[in-house]
Amino acid sequence: MTNQSDMTNYLQTFVEGMISSGVEQAVISPGSRSTPLALLLHRQEKIETFIEVDERSAAFFALGLSKASSKPVVLLCTSGTAAANYYPAICEAYASHIPLVILTTDRPHELRQVGAPQAMDQFYLFQNHVKEFIEMAIPEGTKTMLDYAYWQGMRATDTACQVPSGPIHLNFPLREPLLPDLNQSLITEKTTEVLAGKKQLSEEHLIKCVDAWQGRRGVLVIGGSHTPTEAEVFIKLAETLNWPIISDPLANVTACGKESPLIMSYADLFIQEVEMLQQPEVIVRFGMLPISKNTMFWLQSLDERTAIYFVDETGEWQDQLKQAQVAIQVEEQSFAQSIIDKVAIKTLDSWSQQWITWQEITEQQLNELSEMKVLNETSASLLVHKKMAKHGQLFVSNSNAIRFLDRFSTTETNHYQLFGNRGINGIDGIVSTALGMCAINPDRQNVLLIGDLAMYHDMNGLLVAKRYDLPLTIVLLNNNGGGIFSFLSQRQLDETDFEPIFGTPIDIDFSLVAQLYDAKYVKAESLEQLGTLLETTQRQPEFQIIEVVGDRQENVQLYEKVVAGLKEKFGKNK
Amino acid sequence: MTNQSDMTNYLQTFVEGMISSGVEQAVISPGSRSTPLALLLHRQEKIETFIEVDERSAAFFALGLSKASSKPVVLLCTSGTAAANYYPAICEAYASHIPLVILTTDRPHELRQVGAPQAMDQFYLFQNHVKEFIEMAIPEGTKTMLDYAYWQGMRATDTACQVPSGPIHLNFPLREPLLPDLNQSLITEKTTEVLAGKKQLSEEHLIKCVDAWQGRRGVLVIGGSHTPTEAEVFIKLAETLNWPIISDPLANVTACGKESPLIMSYADLFIQEVEMLQQPEVIVRFGMLPISKNTMFWLQSLDERTAIYFVDETGEWQDQLKQAQVAIQVEEQSFAQSIIDKVAIKTLDSWSQQWITWQEITEQQLNELSEMKVLNETSASLLVHKKMAKHGQLFVSNSNAIRFLDRFSTTETNHYQLFGNRGINGIDGIVSTALGMCAINPDRQNVLLIGDLAMYHDMNGLLVAKRYDLPLTIVLLNNNGGGIFSFLSQRQLDETDFEPIFGTPIDIDFSLVAQLYDAKYVKAESLEQLGTLLETTQRQPEFQIIEVVGDRQENVQLYEKVVAGLKEKFGKNK
Repeated sequence: MTNQSDMTNYLQTFVEGMISSGVEQAVISPGSRSTPLALLLHRQEKIETFIEVDERSAAFFALGLSKASSKPVVLLCTSGTAAANYYPAICEAYASHIPLVILTTDRPHELRQVGAPQAMDQFYLFQNHVKEFIEMAIPEGTKTMLDYAYWQGMRATDTACQVPSGPIHLNFPLREPLLPDLNQSLITEKTTEVLAGKKQLSEEHLIKCVDAWQGRRGVLVIGGSHTPTEAEVFIKLAETLNWPIISDPLANVTACGKESPLIMSYADLFIQEVEMLQQPEVIVRFGMLPISKNTMFWLQSLDERTAIYFVDETGEWQDQLKQAQVAIQVEEQSFAQSIIDKVAIKTLDSWSQQWITWQEITEQQLNELSEMKVLNETSASLLVHKKMAKHGQLFVSNSNAIRFLDRFSTTETNHYQLFGNRGINGIDGIVSTALGMCAINPDRQNVLLIGDLAMYHDMNGLLVAKRYDLPLTIVLLNNNGGGIFSFLSQRQLDETDFEPIFGTPIDIDFSLVAQLYDAKYVKAESLEQLGTLLETTQRQPEFQIIEVVGDRQENVQLYEKVVAGLKEKFGKNK
Repeated sequence: MTNQSDMTNYLQTFVEGMISSGVEQAVISPGSRSTPLALLLHRQEKIETFIEVDERSAAFFALGLSKASSKPVVLLCTSGTAAANYYPAICEAYASHIPLVILTTDRPHELRQVGAPQAMDQFYLFQNHVKEFIEMAIPEGTKTMLDYAYWQGMRATDTACQVPSGPIHLNFPLREPLLPDLNQSLITEKTTEVLAGKKQLSEEHLIKCVDAWQGRRGVLVIGGSHTPTEAEVFIKLAETLNWPIISDPLANVTACGKESPLIMSYADLFIQEVEMLQQPEVIVRFGMLPISKNTMFWLQSLDERTAIYFVDETGEWQDQLKQAQVAIQVEEQSFAQSIIDKVAIKTLDSWSQQWITWQEITEQQLNELSEMKVLNETSASLLVHKKMAKHGQLFVSNSNAIRFLDRFSTTETNHYQLFGNRGINGIDGIVSTALGMCAINPDRQNVLLIGDLAMYHDMNGLLVAKRYDLPLTIVLLNNNGGGIFSFLSQRQLDETDFEPIFGTPIDIDFSLVAQLYDAKYVKAESLEQLGTLLETTQRQPEFQIIEVVGDRQENVQLYEKVVAGLKEKFGKNK
């Protein structure tokens, strides 16, 4: 049977291995079987621990920590259904390449398949949504097994971090007694340094790209999540080639603070409405498709006269349009920089100028709109974007909030960073992910822009804000239900089907929710008031809910009015 | 591409197949990809539908429906992480043999592995925790494919219901347009009747058991969930053999209303304290081990002089003690009845009398205890048990609440039914499972006995009570944290480790929670008041939270006082 001292050494050594590969934070959900690892993580000075009762929220919180810190984050829970609650966040982490190190604890072999309490099959629990599943050995104190524990902690964490990074699952069978020996001094002080290479193209391949791109009519299309620093490189690439750049909000092109007329922030609004006399000769896509459906339809409409290049760091070749003629598997940022350094010939101004005109006409149309001057979900979302402070962090929820930003926002000079969960686009776990983001830089301005349904889904996540004093400002767009469906084909249904199945009003009084979690609560009554509240968060971050009462029909009408106006302005006949 | 009419026929036919195998209820979580199935289920007159925004709660709600109705229940959600939220309830359903029919909707093949929004690998999503995974064909309207859809709906549902019953997962790839043709008349009116056999022993094997059991010193040990009707058969078996009967609270032996001196309801308290002069000659176990740890330790201490029979309907041989000499794979109730019919010789009264004395002495000790006469978590739990009405339904939560009942409750004449989630014993999803139970018989008295941590974990589940007017009375034992750990080895830790990792106080004001969900709220100040409130629920079921403020230390002290008293009374020297 396991002795207490051996178990302590084995697990302690494992933890040291994880630290050696960069772990600095762990999120623990209480339980009995996980006791020794929980205590060792909690006592470990190099690791900051958070305790969260609800494992679903805990896992999304860890996701947010890792998104904002770009570091691997540990999750720990007990045996049984506890671990199954991690699943939604793990699916998202796998799809959006976030390195979580998931530790589940388990009954030892002799207590499996026998109906022992809180025991279930935890092997491959997360199926194809983790990079690896590892069943750890029962703790032993021999040198061989301590070396194994260290190596596994280090190796598994490193595997999670390697491109494409993603979650990894280690299952620990533990025998009683479950209390480690906390007085024992640490026996290992190993560290192993990891020097990891990155995918680079050969000089020959680089020149091939430059030759194919420079001087041609091209468009840069940037999808997926990028940091503001990466976004600046993309903008520089666009300027070097003199190409318009279309991007996903999470690519941070419009948030990074670098202004350029080539940024087509309104592409979703105008791209289907304008008369395009010439097809582009080249499209260069970085990462996944941007959220804009209109951009996707436009790309889909291009015939073989356009050469499509797909730059994909992960090598996963996730090309929804399946039209790429060249797939480039390379680290994006240094690749973009290499191209910038080699480009000698700019594309003609006439090509970029027409795009700039389209963007300007759209801006003018939006400025003329009286609805943008009063408080509604769209204007509130734009105001959040405008009022972000330098180095602020904004988390934007699915499904409507991010679309408001994508359609209607343009470049601001504030240089903040935008986050979201766009791996699988769930409305689950958003509150916790945003709180994880906030916990990394709590001294900055931290804002979550979210709808009522997503907010409700992860209301439990708010407990961690209360417990750890996380000063997140939640701007709640409350249209009492699932607003996205009013934009989709389901809206054709009559009310007897639509409201109960898609509208799903939840009738929750969010001022009570605020009270429940000791958050400040304000209902915004005007755009001016919302602006003042947001300005205050720049200087004085605090945990609060600012409710904006919305209207699902109004959102659709506003959008349709904009599109109708653009149809008139661009006068395209279809 | 799919045409709307073919898709409608195909899915409609599938739904008819499920109905033919006994589906009467479906729980739907809103989403886009699931639209056609959601609408067809909602429009189907033979199926009652519930809409629940949070898929985790939805799945536990379905679990509760199926537990209380003993019928298969359908779950439907959209693609992506939505389905992953089902996982905890599915694990529990698999472990506790509840037939859920899980329908997930998915992008079609051409939109997989391409980074399409809200798409992820849903194959074998629930790994080893469903009986089967089925990828459905893309909808087609040919006779062959309609026959396939009907057959699969019928067969899959039936598979879920076959012993050992459990969840089953069907994944539907659906193409746009996602709106079915609701005006289309139903094309199939098939029904298929299922005549299912049950496991029965041969006459020879039955006689072998009777010969080995009658006239011997035996003990019946009943674990797992059973209905009150089944429990009555077990009690009759015990009386026929003149054996004491030890049971899990969920076996409903103490709730079924049949009184017998042979029911050892206090076994957990006395079994380790009494001087047992003779080992039993026979132990007959039905199902899993009861929750009582002391009973388990006692069984473990028996040597080979005791013959152990393990009756296991599932054939899964989940024997934690691995000591069974005979495993009997048979339908439990008719087997027990066959034995009753054949037993001719009763066991000596001296054997049963000593057990009856132990039970009586323990009862006397509890009656002497002043703590039982004032309000605390233990006395409140017992009072709930006492105040259950005839045909009432009580759901009891993990981890402490069910232990209070197991240790301290005895037979009442009220004939109610006790439910719980003891497949994997999680504290997740308890509120929703109890609401599912309540939705089956909303006109009866429905009570949930739960601690604050479990209550918090599934607070979201309360929305369905508000939406569907489910009159559940929640008796909330609030000790502000994880009470179970105060009974486990973790309590040896000092406060700096214990409180944050195990105590985990959540400081939630549950009167606000009640307000949030339009529930009545009362804080019980005395046992008398609690009694009156519970009596009212017998006549007037309503959605309410009755809070009992508890104390983690007090619970432990009360238990230790009882054990110390019994040590003195039984005077066993160890």
